[in-house]
Amino acid sequence: MDSNANIIVHEVGPRDGLQNEAERLSVSARLELILALAAAGLPRIEVGSFVRPEWIPQLADTGELVRQLLAQKLPAGLRMSALVPNRTGLARAVECGLREVAVFMSASESHNQKNTNKSIADSLREFEQLIPEARKQGVTVRGYVSCVWGCPFEGPVDPKRALEIGRRLVSFGAEEISLGDTIGVGNPRQTREIVSLFLGGDAAGPGIPAGKLALHMHDTHGTALANCLVAYELGIRIFDAAVGGTGGCPYAPGAAGNLATEDLVSMFTEMGIGSGVDLERLFEAGAVAQRHIGHALTGRRLQAAFGRRAKLAVARAAT
Amino acid sequence: MDSNANIIVHEVGPRDGLQNEAERLSVSARLELILALAAAGLPRIEVGSFVRPEWIPQLADTGELVRQLLAQKLPAGLRMSALVPNRTGLARAVECGLREVAVFMSASESHNQKNTNKSIADSLREFEQLIPEARKQGVTVRGYVSCVWGCPFEGPVDPKRALEIGRRLVSFGAEEISLGDTIGVGNPRQTREIVSLFLGGDAAGPGIPAGKLALHMHDTHGTALANCLVAYELGIRIFDAAVGGTGGCPYAPGAAGNLATEDLVSMFTEMGIGSGVDLERLFEAGAVAQRHIGHALTGRRLQAAFGRRAKLAVARAAT
Repeated sequence: MDSNANIIVHEVGPRDGLQNEAERLSVSARLELILALAAAGLPRIEVGSFVRPEWIPQLADTGELVRQLLAQKLPAGLRMSALVPNRTGLARAVECGLREVAVFMSASESHNQKNTNKSIADSLREFEQLIPEARKQGVTVRGYVSCVWGCPFEGPVDPKRALEIGRRLVSFGAEEISLGDTIGVGNPRQTREIVSLFLGGDAAGPGIPAGKLALHMHDTHGTALANCLVAYELGIRIFDAAVGGTGGCPYAPGAAGNLATEDLVSMFTEMGIGSGVDLERLFEAGAVAQRHIGHALTGRRLQAAFGRRAKLAVARAAT
Repeated sequence: MDSNANIIVHEVGPRDGLQNEAERLSVSARLELILALAAAGLPRIEVGSFVRPEWIPQLADTGELVRQLLAQKLPAGLRMSALVPNRTGLARAVECGLREVAVFMSASESHNQKNTNKSIADSLREFEQLIPEARKQGVTVRGYVSCVWGCPFEGPVDPKRALEIGRRLVSFGAEEISLGDTIGVGNPRQTREIVSLFLGGDAAGPGIPAGKLALHMHDTHGTALANCLVAYELGIRIFDAAVGGTGGCPYAPGAAGNLATEDLVSMFTEMGIGSGVDLERLFEAGAVAQRHIGHALTGRRLQAAFGRRAKLAVARAAT
């Protein structure tokens, strides 16, 4: 198979998933989950965040978690990263032994303000210093641009604004830009327009090569897979997803889960497009996540797998 | 807008949805649901089934339901139909005043046997008589071919076998063939192959024009919308869906719901492709369905709408 046909799954469940779940997992539960995800063959896992624990108590003790993780026997080549809000966070991540970090900002001014307490201009000023500083230490930086498909406060967002931010982050030295449909409302026509714009550029400047772009979809309206399909056809190969669709429960007001990793891996695998992920072991990781989080996760493929197992167990008990 | 860009939604919730729900709805509850669906602008509603009530108790009294429905003031142009297993069922449907029926069979021999207690050859023999008999009375017949994407007993199904069945049903006088992913496991590559085969034909005979083909997807693996998108791009315009994704709960072993009507309508509407359905009124119908069925329905767009409303209500109460 043409290896450029394959996708790369960037697992964000232990970070973007858990930070939006009501249940706060212990460091040992998070460790167990991450090891299960690594055992499933996921090539990249975002393990936590170095934002202040008052802001996101679910991800407190990420430093301790990383130390424990790095003491484990991990699959060769596994890439682990964590979110850092600023240079203090970067220093803490590096101190714990991480070699990859991610910074985040929004394409919407009001979302950036509410989410990071900074203007877009101030975020860019921070990252203009942070990214080169990280690179000087050999640390790879991923840049999240959120609300590209729409903002919960402003509604539609001009994708050229998002592209300009992406270009700036790349110019500072970011290795990859992850484009987020933070509220999960994107439709395939819009995805085609956004991805084409990012690849082709606009009057203000060039595009960003497909190899430096990732798609980060939430599944509020059920369109995440259709959006990934369209992006794949345009050349995108890196997709973010969260085990079980963690990060929001459809039965909780306004909450929006991430695209479920099993849904993503399953669809592409069945299309003959590889990801290196073992789906059965991914279901095991999903079972770990569901057990610790304490409610049924929303990923469809995962629940179908659980259902089939339950049926088999009943059939076995009956014989 | 080019009207050939628009889609036609064939609502199957009151039939395919309810027949797979554990809760049995009263005739008056089914009536309320169908009227709410009609009020949302759905152009076609499959209201029930004339199979024997011992087989599907959920759809008992479809005759009484149809009589009550036809006594209501209904939107002009609304097309209502019911499933009929044989000529006795056809006679009952006509007697109640229906002018459209649907027959069903499977592309998989074992599924056809288990589902209809007949071989594929026997089903075809029955419909070779039933369809012309219906047409003689001015009754339109839709033909369901299920398990086209795979069979719960046999696994993969040869799509050429399904095409041959579809061609036979069309030759008997069926107005439309609805291709079913009965277990909801289809992937977009497979959908492209199946739809292309149905449109283009094979060595054994011609294809079937897009205007005579519908897609009937279940959403077990979360791929239903991606599959509809691919089929739309190939020219398919008629899509089956069920209010709220009724027909199965992901938290029940092995159950697989239909594609949710709100998910389908929402995605295409946001792509600028019309369906004539009012999404807000469709959510109202979803609320009716959820109230009567008694558990949270699985449609993502519907639950997102409920979540937003709950949030608004909280915000209003707080001011």
